[in-house]
Amino acid sequence: MDRSQFKFKTQLRVRNYEVDWQGIVHNANYFLYFELGRIEYLKHLGIKLDISTIQSESKVVLVRNEVDYKSPARFDDLLDVYSRVSYIKDSSFGFEGLIEVTSSQLLVSENVAVHVWLHPQSNAPITVPDSFRQIVQKFEGSSVEMIGRK
Amino acid sequence: MDRSQFKFKTQLRVRNYEVDWQGIVHNANYFLYFELGRIEYLKHLGIKLDISTIQSESKVVLVRNEVDYKSPARFDDLLDVYSRVSYIKDSSFGFEGLIEVTSSQLLVSENVAVHVWLHPQSNAPITVPDSFRQIVQKFEGSSVEMIGRK
Amino acid sequence: MDRSQFKFKTQLRVRNYEVDWQGIVHNANYFLYFELGRIEYLKHLGIKLDISTIQSESKVVLVRNEVDYKSPARFDDLLDVYSRVSYIKDSSFGFEGLIEVTSSQLLVSENVAVHVWLHPQSNAPITVPDSFRQIVQKFEGSSVEMIGRK
Amino acid sequence: MDRSQFKFKTQLRVRNYEVDWQGIVHNANYFLYFELGRIEYLKHLGIKLDISTIQSESKVVLVRNEVDYKSPARFDDLLDVYSRVSYIKDSSFGFEGLIEVTSSQLLVSENVAVHVWLHPQSNAPITVPDSFRQIVQKFEGSSVEMIGRK
Repeated sequence: MDRSQFKFKTQLRVRNYEVDWQGIVHNANYFLYFELGRIEYLKHLGIKLDISTIQSESKVVLVRNEVDYKSPARFDDLLDVYSRVSYIKDSSFGFEGLIEVTSSQLLVSENVAVHVWLHPQSNAPITVPDSFRQIVQKFEGSSVEMIGRK
Repeated sequence: MDRSQFKFKTQLRVRNYEVDWQGIVHNANYFLYFELGRIEYLKHLGIKLDISTIQSESKVVLVRNEVDYKSPARFDDLLDVYSRVSYIKDSSFGFEGLIEVTSSQLLVSENVAVHVWLHPQSNAPITVPDSFRQIVQKFEGSSVEMIGRK
Repeated sequence: MDRSQFKFKTQLRVRNYEVDWQGIVHNANYFLYFELGRIEYLKHLGIKLDISTIQSESKVVLVRNEVDYKSPARFDDLLDVYSRVSYIKDSSFGFEGLIEVTSSQLLVSENVAVHVWLHPQSNAPITVPDSFRQIVQKFEGSSVEMIGRK
Repeated sequence: MDRSQFKFKTQLRVRNYEVDWQGIVHNANYFLYFELGRIEYLKHLGIKLDISTIQSESKVVLVRNEVDYKSPARFDDLLDVYSRVSYIKDSSFGFEGLIEVTSSQLLVSENVAVHVWLHPQSNAPITVPDSFRQIVQKFEGSSVEMIGRK
């Protein structure tokens, strides 16, 4: 994963209760951190995909979530959480995430999170709305890959 | 992922505080459920890989964790968590996990978790101990793949 | 707190990720355990006070929550979680909770949780419904104290 | 609880996964927030009472934890977490905490957390060390109550 491709970063500080009995951040918390990054990313781009979504005309669900652990984060570490939409397909899109320790730029972990756009009643996959596609492309430029759609 | 390959199952009940604002289990909790499954699996096989490990002659770290979300679990669902070591390589091994709703056998999610065996001081990858290899093979039989070692 | 006054018990097993860096259950998790006990208690009595409540004619909010820590619970401990409504006042009621290690009956912690019944629109305190009062009294008998109402 | 008595404040932002199905911060998370406040407080005063404590000459345990819920915090709220040691007795001391929404100064909740100093081997209560007493008194001045010791 190439950090230079990320245009958006948010920060968070590791809280004491996120650290496990080995003195390092418990592995499941990175999924929370990356999710936080995605939410901040969407907020930054002015995209609403949270609570309201499930009562609106379309909904987005997370279908796959991967983390590669590179180096543990520790209590009180300030972390840089990088997020970007890396590709948009016909009815799905992928987020990449990357976490570094702010002070040392030590790579902590990497994430891929795949989302699918569903019809809110039938739950059938639907085409990613053009509005979403355009907002992301405007922000990401050539670093977001558009697949299967002209 | 093929459920018939799993020889070990544990159960858990979804707790109220694991459910998010959509009324379904928050996506990060599945990683906790699968981890629980792995720990129960190791306990069942008499393998100690927990706290004590980090003070002993070798240590095991989680390097990769993937979940595919198939269908959401809900509050108070009783879940079957299946776990198995699916392969052992020279210095790493993989766990597969699969969660179903007990009552309906509805598939909830699938997990792959890759672990590496490290030297406790140098942190260099070391060969998976024969004792681990043998205990797993005895339990799993032909369903565990042995890679890169006779 | 007197264990003999409790007529309802549920059980749970301490999960690995609920244990902190001291090898014992993190202090905030007991609040989750006691909440679980209260929810099971209400379910056992056939009282619905969960999600649906906030969209119905009345709602109940938690206004105070206390825990006394007596002895730490540890990973994999099976715990007995006792719950009871100890009093009902005009617009509020109190839950008591008590946790013991199942195997040893070692006292782990005690909880008092105070709830107030509110008008769903105005948020003003309202009188606890007679139906709630009666169901609890039928189950608890003389061990629930009725205060300020004939 | 009187906010003007607090000399120390830290801030945190409510994370999405801390919000429950009612769209508000789950009640147990406030205990985590207050704990975070206490840890930052101790760090600010240069007092080490964390991991290392359990291997050192003395240890401190939390014996009682109370929260009064005043008004719910919501997703993305920035919160002011005020902390102070309000009293020191012979072998125990109490922390008070108070949380407000930063933007509105809306009172969210209040906390009292009682700690006891124990002998690390015998677990018997021991006298609070003078060094702790002095550091706190220097920082808090007359707002910390010294009880039962000249």
